[in-house]
Amino acid sequence: MLNWDNIFATRSSRMRASEIRELLKLLDRPDIISFAGGIPDPALFPDKEFKQAYADIFDSAAVNSALQYSVSEGYKPLREWLITQLAALGIPCELDNVFIVSGSQQGLDYLGKLFLSPNDTALVTWPTYLGALQAFNAYEPSYDQLTPNGNRTPDSYRAQAAAAGGKVKFAYLSADFSNPTGETVDLAGREKLIDLANEMDIAIIEDAAYQSLRYDGDPVPPILALEIAQKGHIDDTRTIYCGSFSKTLAPGLRVGFIVANAPVIRKLVLMKQAADLHSSTINQMAIAEVARKGFDAQVAKIKAAYSKRRDCMLAALEKHMPEGTSWTKPEGGMFIWVTLPKGMDGAKLLAKSIESAKVAFVPGRAFFADGSGENTFRISFSSSNEARIEDGIARLGALITGEIGGK
Amino acid sequence: MLNWDNIFATRSSRMRASEIRELLKLLDRPDIISFAGGIPDPALFPDKEFKQAYADIFDSAAVNSALQYSVSEGYKPLREWLITQLAALGIPCELDNVFIVSGSQQGLDYLGKLFLSPNDTALVTWPTYLGALQAFNAYEPSYDQLTPNGNRTPDSYRAQAAAAGGKVKFAYLSADFSNPTGETVDLAGREKLIDLANEMDIAIIEDAAYQSLRYDGDPVPPILALEIAQKGHIDDTRTIYCGSFSKTLAPGLRVGFIVANAPVIRKLVLMKQAADLHSSTINQMAIAEVARKGFDAQVAKIKAAYSKRRDCMLAALEKHMPEGTSWTKPEGGMFIWVTLPKGMDGAKLLAKSIESAKVAFVPGRAFFADGSGENTFRISFSSSNEARIEDGIARLGALITGEIGGK
Repeated sequence: MLNWDNIFATRSSRMRASEIRELLKLLDRPDIISFAGGIPDPALFPDKEFKQAYADIFDSAAVNSALQYSVSEGYKPLREWLITQLAALGIPCELDNVFIVSGSQQGLDYLGKLFLSPNDTALVTWPTYLGALQAFNAYEPSYDQLTPNGNRTPDSYRAQAAAAGGKVKFAYLSADFSNPTGETVDLAGREKLIDLANEMDIAIIEDAAYQSLRYDGDPVPPILALEIAQKGHIDDTRTIYCGSFSKTLAPGLRVGFIVANAPVIRKLVLMKQAADLHSSTINQMAIAEVARKGFDAQVAKIKAAYSKRRDCMLAALEKHMPEGTSWTKPEGGMFIWVTLPKGMDGAKLLAKSIESAKVAFVPGRAFFADGSGENTFRISFSSSNEARIEDGIARLGALITGEIGGK
Repeated sequence: MLNWDNIFATRSSRMRASEIRELLKLLDRPDIISFAGGIPDPALFPDKEFKQAYADIFDSAAVNSALQYSVSEGYKPLREWLITQLAALGIPCELDNVFIVSGSQQGLDYLGKLFLSPNDTALVTWPTYLGALQAFNAYEPSYDQLTPNGNRTPDSYRAQAAAAGGKVKFAYLSADFSNPTGETVDLAGREKLIDLANEMDIAIIEDAAYQSLRYDGDPVPPILALEIAQKGHIDDTRTIYCGSFSKTLAPGLRVGFIVANAPVIRKLVLMKQAADLHSSTINQMAIAEVARKGFDAQVAKIKAAYSKRRDCMLAALEKHMPEGTSWTKPEGGMFIWVTLPKGMDGAKLLAKSIESAKVAFVPGRAFFADGSGENTFRISFSSSNEARIEDGIARLGALITGEIGGK
């Protein structure tokens, strides 16, 4: 028998199965109400618009280029459309600043690859997006805790990074309705983060996957917009903005984007050439056409549906969750984050819940780079209707009430 | 000004622009006859079949899954179709052995990531596929020269790898009509390579991108097929087979595949989860439908066209190339490899050729891990018609004749 571990790279020891991906399999069991996945509701996909877009491509002179190799930076009309959208967000930029990737997850992988040598430090929130930890893990970093409104000093970060054997390279965060907590970093927190990054000479990776999905409250400018306002030009900024069409149009096409200063984009384009040449040409063209014709209407449709589900889930939590539990009140996105009484374990609760309450969610620990967060879990309201949300939270509330009472 | 080099990972210094990709831009100049790109002829794309496939997806119940997130291992019906194809090639395997990637270039990136720690050694032919060197470079390896029919001993490879600071991890090669030379490794060379890999306990990466495109001569079994015959079961083999739909159906969808023992596939699936979740769902479905309905007919169509172009290019070389030059006689694929007299420089010739002869090709040096191969270049016959091939080679032959005469 071959022992592959003898020849795998050291990084491979950090590649482990994802709880979320394993749990996605539960979605197929009709007896389980799943709040586990952070996936869009397929009933809201603009499938007619995509059908038309693909048909139009095949009926046009563009069909040959749609099926052919294309440039690594991405389809120009899509990048041009993004430039107009970004301008409205306070991010004036040019073609050299916009780069198409195969979903924003690939953007995170590429940024880990660009910045992290083994034992370098990435600053991430506790908790953070599990997929970011998985993407970065391949490059063997250490993690330290990012607290956007906290009081950690550059010196303390530097000291801990040096002790881990490297340097701090970037701060990664989802600033709007983050996965997993649903929370938003306020203006003061964003400005403090830019100051920290300036002082430390590190990059900021702004994961904007959910930024379009605000249901109420006032929008906070993207970190990149704030930094451009401060520095005068995107090419003088250190914030790297990662966007996605997966939450607004459809994830199955695997199209996302990165917006940043030109030197970083140039390096990412070279990286993509070497890693997979380019993202699917035909899918970039289809996304460009659907976005151009009706992005705003599609986003409005999704927001109307998801905001009702969020309201429904928050009301159900209020009604069914016992004393001692607490949860976030997100202004957008797909997620609510529940904290159980200290000593309870989200993973053990999940096992019981699948068995008796028949409700699935994601235990919180996987989202913590330090393995803490035992007494937390994530629930998503995006892909269940209101009746199932009420039913599922009632069953989950009853289970938790019983667990607390039974202690 | 930010100095990004201060915080980029060390690997980023090895990410450089590709000569081939830069040259692709010349394809758009109508006055240039380009033999540079290794791209398929878009006139041969099965565009009507793809049009039908996308339309069928949107008209079926599968539309929601086509636009949704999917599993990292790939679309099951496509993997099932591949299993039947692979069986006919002497590669009996199961679903656990087949993994879909976003083009076989991504497969090479993932395999570099899986095996190479910095300073490990990859064995590659001199010359080899430039894109493989670019993919592997991100993981900071050393290279040593693979000579499938040569006499390097395991000890000499081990000694050189140790001197470079690591271990030999794999031998990479394109065994059929390789890019860039068009040459095929014979049965004895393949068996010798398996023996070497067995002795050294390393993997073999078999790049089969062009394997379907044989125009004449007897097929040689894939290295993986030979190793399965030797070991009895794919799960006991060390050959990792990388396949592509880019040369047979269309590159713009970015769909390729890896076939290997189950432990390696499991690790690659975890890697893909972390790196980009999965390849485009809708494109995998479209490829599966087009392949199922008419893969063999499509391959027959391409082979008929490309084999004529190869014949035409070989005849033109015979007619127009001066004494002192030589070239390969490929039995398939897209490429012919030309060797100039010693002392001539393919890159300098290209500069003159673009200016006067108006013919583009790829200078050979980029394909050599050691930077040698100055007096070589690659020409592709896949995407030019016969009149342009005759014309272009005549112009190139005249230029080279003049260069040799003028020395």
